[in-house]
Amino acid sequence: MSAVRRFTLLASGEYGWEAVERLRYKEEGSAPFRDITRQVLFAQPDQDCELRYFEIAPGGHSTLERHEHTHAVLILRGRGRVRLDADEQPVAERDLVTIDPLTWHQFRADADSALGFLCLVRKTRDRPQLPSEHDAARLRGC
Amino acid sequence: MSAVRRFTLLASGEYGWEAVERLRYKEEGSAPFRDITRQVLFAQPDQDCELRYFEIAPGGHSTLERHEHTHAVLILRGRGRVRLDADEQPVAERDLVTIDPLTWHQFRADADSALGFLCLVRKTRDRPQLPSEHDAARLRGC
Repeated sequence: MSAVRRFTLLASGEYGWEAVERLRYKEEGSAPFRDITRQVLFAQPDQDCELRYFEIAPGGHSTLERHEHTHAVLILRGRGRVRLDADEQPVAERDLVTIDPLTWHQFRADADSALGFLCLVRKTRDRPQLPSEHDAARLRGC
Repeated sequence: MSAVRRFTLLASGEYGWEAVERLRYKEEGSAPFRDITRQVLFAQPDQDCELRYFEIAPGGHSTLERHEHTHAVLILRGRGRVRLDADEQPVAERDLVTIDPLTWHQFRADADSALGFLCLVRKTRDRPQLPSEHDAARLRGC
């Protein structure tokens, strides 16, 4: 049903939209991530894309990963940093982050701020790849 | 190329992302609208959806229209009102508006505030329908 849903402080202590299911983010396997939740804002049977909202608690981070599918991310709340291969940049509200295929990427919330972002992806997408020890060392600049 | 683009006051006097083309919104035919611009933030050849940003200047409005495809709209900046069939509600930053098929809808910016919103749609979608005089009178409550 057509509706206006308010972005609000939920009973869980996190921000989000009421009447949109909120999931503790959990990937299969051992992908490292910390303090991250997810809402699927819009997913239609006739659309091959999903608009999702992730919120990383202060000090938390997403998994360092890469994949074949392209990503568009729009920061909706708070402050943090994004890694794009060897580059790392601060991000804040309304920044648009486009992530090309096979670009290593990771989002981190600042220590004193949550980081909430929208993420647009295809429903049919390849699984994320995790870095090998070699990849991780290279990304750390070792 | 992967990138972080900042949401910023552009030389045009409107907000948006640098290096993303900004278009004066123009529909074919005589659809009434006022003071509205558009940016396409993300459109991939392998995705059947587009993430677009519309900005309505203070006092402006979008076309009153309906269509078969579903809409998801997220308010990113400012304040205004949305019509959903006979209902009208205020909207503000981060409100999520979902619009079912064939729901008449129109966005208006407040007189003293722009209204900027993200809109997610299928690339392959039906054309908007405009209200007949009968529809318009019914929506006005006449």
